[in-house]
Amino acid sequence: MSPFTSEFLGTTTLVLLGDGVVANVVLNKTKGQNSGWIVITAAWAFAVFCGVIVAQPSGAHLNPAVTLSLAVAGKFAWANVFSYIAAQILGAMCGALTVWIMYKPHFDASADNPGGQLAVFATGPAILNYPANLLSEIIGTFVLIFVILFFGTDKNVAGLAALGPLPVAILVFAIGLSLGGTTGYAINPARDLGPRIIHAIVPIKGKGTSDWSYAWVPILGPVIGAVLAAVVFNLL
Amino acid sequence: MSPFTSEFLGTTTLVLLGDGVVANVVLNKTKGQNSGWIVITAAWAFAVFCGVIVAQPSGAHLNPAVTLSLAVAGKFAWANVFSYIAAQILGAMCGALTVWIMYKPHFDASADNPGGQLAVFATGPAILNYPANLLSEIIGTFVLIFVILFFGTDKNVAGLAALGPLPVAILVFAIGLSLGGTTGYAINPARDLGPRIIHAIVPIKGKGTSDWSYAWVPILGPVIGAVLAAVVFNLL
Amino acid sequence: MSPFTSEFLGTTTLVLLGDGVVANVVLNKTKGQNSGWIVITAAWAFAVFCGVIVAQPSGAHLNPAVTLSLAVAGKFAWANVFSYIAAQILGAMCGALTVWIMYKPHFDASADNPGGQLAVFATGPAILNYPANLLSEIIGTFVLIFVILFFGTDKNVAGLAALGPLPVAILVFAIGLSLGGTTGYAINPARDLGPRIIHAIVPIKGKGTSDWSYAWVPILGPVIGAVLAAVVFNLL
Amino acid sequence: MSPFTSEFLGTTTLVLLGDGVVANVVLNKTKGQNSGWIVITAAWAFAVFCGVIVAQPSGAHLNPAVTLSLAVAGKFAWANVFSYIAAQILGAMCGALTVWIMYKPHFDASADNPGGQLAVFATGPAILNYPANLLSEIIGTFVLIFVILFFGTDKNVAGLAALGPLPVAILVFAIGLSLGGTTGYAINPARDLGPRIIHAIVPIKGKGTSDWSYAWVPILGPVIGAVLAAVVFNLL
Repeated sequence: MSPFTSEFLGTTTLVLLGDGVVANVVLNKTKGQNSGWIVITAAWAFAVFCGVIVAQPSGAHLNPAVTLSLAVAGKFAWANVFSYIAAQILGAMCGALTVWIMYKPHFDASADNPGGQLAVFATGPAILNYPANLLSEIIGTFVLIFVILFFGTDKNVAGLAALGPLPVAILVFAIGLSLGGTTGYAINPARDLGPRIIHAIVPIKGKGTSDWSYAWVPILGPVIGAVLAAVVFNLL
Repeated sequence: MSPFTSEFLGTTTLVLLGDGVVANVVLNKTKGQNSGWIVITAAWAFAVFCGVIVAQPSGAHLNPAVTLSLAVAGKFAWANVFSYIAAQILGAMCGALTVWIMYKPHFDASADNPGGQLAVFATGPAILNYPANLLSEIIGTFVLIFVILFFGTDKNVAGLAALGPLPVAILVFAIGLSLGGTTGYAINPARDLGPRIIHAIVPIKGKGTSDWSYAWVPILGPVIGAVLAAVVFNLL
Repeated sequence: MSPFTSEFLGTTTLVLLGDGVVANVVLNKTKGQNSGWIVITAAWAFAVFCGVIVAQPSGAHLNPAVTLSLAVAGKFAWANVFSYIAAQILGAMCGALTVWIMYKPHFDASADNPGGQLAVFATGPAILNYPANLLSEIIGTFVLIFVILFFGTDKNVAGLAALGPLPVAILVFAIGLSLGGTTGYAINPARDLGPRIIHAIVPIKGKGTSDWSYAWVPILGPVIGAVLAAVVFNLL
Repeated sequence: MSPFTSEFLGTTTLVLLGDGVVANVVLNKTKGQNSGWIVITAAWAFAVFCGVIVAQPSGAHLNPAVTLSLAVAGKFAWANVFSYIAAQILGAMCGALTVWIMYKPHFDASADNPGGQLAVFATGPAILNYPANLLSEIIGTFVLIFVILFFGTDKNVAGLAALGPLPVAILVFAIGLSLGGTTGYAINPARDLGPRIIHAIVPIKGKGTSDWSYAWVPILGPVIGAVLAAVVFNLL
């Protein structure tokens, strides 16, 4: 399996399970409607767990911010950055498309809630404030990358290796619970952009705006946060 | 212990704990009434964890879709498929029967809710739409089998083996949280058929239909999804 | 440290954390009031996790039903049964006493709810029905002991040993979520009797009955369930 | 990386994720508003998990009570106690400052709730009663340190080492769920004092008192509890 396929399949798994939980919690008439923040954050954490398992052959970046920060840190070849990011965005699109197909009757039943329909695909701010929203995504992604970089330090290697993908899942769980309250913690440009493109393309009864005016925040914020984390970690 | 007994006991454990949580959440006057989707999905995940421990001697299929997909993938002898599936269905019946016996006073107290009584035993669609419901079960089971098949790939073996049955429990947790919103994620023909047979047989105060018109969906969907996953995985 | 001290401290830890969560969820004016079944069952599971760590030197029975079933199975000397059970009951009393001291202002604030006050200490039936309640405790404890006995089977040893006390915590989590809805899953005579004695002794503003008429159920049920599980496991 | 930097960064991570979840649950217009005790306790547990990973080089105390109890137990040099505690308090201040910056629009939107604003930074009693509140913090911290000290005993070493920082996270989860209902389980003087200083310093729309009259409880209680635990453990 090529690294491209591996990243594609892993990110598809991530976003299928991640966007899926938002559909379950937000759309009308689902079995998990209004089941709360613990359900959303648990599912995204476990989605990362599963995505990492699937994408192990390619190193399981699943996130352009991870790929870029590793390249900046000198741990990943710049020549492969473009194909990884392309695979991640396409995988995220594929995952979101599958969620749309699977939850189609519930999208139809949610024509009264175009904001909720969009939320299945893309993140949005709880309070619109571009500098604050950007900063939120920077901080969330900084924590993600900064802690991941500590996974591999000498004293941690033995203890954490035995836990497989569990530490990164717990880390994402923590970020969601604690830092997700402002912008919904994209912390991954592909996770937001790919599904937003799908939202713009597919027909949905009662569909509203894809809110492209906000789309740059969950792209730029994670990239800044990830690169900052790599730089700070290397300084230490 | 024979493989038949092992699969039987493991699936009994799975369905006793799985159907048990639905009884606790759905029936009247229980201590966990209306405790939500996180309770249901956590319990099914941990039910898988326990079922896998019990059925380790037989490989812990616990699910005809798993057995069939392994046979299709050439990793399990076709000669044993029938006895495994029989053990799984009988185990699921035994687990559901035990739930009915244990929660008998609460079934009696829920005579006003025949739909809830049935939900303890069998899955049902949030919105009835056969093609969409079938697709939901196909997708949910595809993810289950597809990710399980990645557990055994080279780079994962070391990391995941140390976690015992935890990865499959987390996977089932994720599927429930994210993909369970449409049809209640049977993703296992025995888990649905066995208990539905028990619902049809046992006397329950105020019992309604066993909804046999829907029963083929959680049988056919998981089989298609599991075989598809095995085929796609082998192509890769 | 003697086995007696070890069992005493482990069961104190178990019941302090276990009864503590019920105080937090049930009593008035706490920070976790009405936080639901997931909170109660998670805390009891983690209480087991912590209790097992503390009582490792004595084998971490923490439960007369475990001690008895191991003796029946020939894996524990009958000569030590009495001292283990005494340590467990005394430990449970010590844990419950600490909860009462710690949550004293909240007990005072809950004088309007004597049933809730008792629930901190002892289990009670959701629907009073002695045969059904007894059966519930038998089934819950049967599952507890039966699955634990499978932890040590050949194929499981490697996978589960690396998880330390996590599997038994997950098992207790599952039993609570799924089988706790009827009687509150004592599944441990010491966990119920010890705190009930404390409830009978200590002064509590607005205290009601200690419900001794029910006290035999969470003693006899777990003993029967545990011994049955050991017998069935040995037959297999 | 120096031990000072390590403790500083670990405690920053701990408090950023810990205070972050309170902001998410308590402040107005967040995505996780009123999402309950399970969200708060899960996040603090995972915050510990992440903080321990970051601060592994310095032994991951993250808590002056841990540092002091280890010094009392003769396992940590008294000469390093001051710099560790300074790093922990400064780290907690840094984490709390970041939460304030990140959730700024939500603090502004919560001008009607000065108590909630303070709760993001510092703990407070559910029922004000100094002796009872102090005792709560003593008991909570006693359990924290007492169980941690058992992590390293002979029989536990193998089983728990493979779980990395997971056992301490589960322990903190348990303490939060069960013993956090009275005072909000500071169980760490730095976690409370550092952020309270930030609350006193930074401008917040509608800010109320920093409640300095209570501030000694979550300092003195954890210190007493931790030292008591070390003394009792050594006696055993």
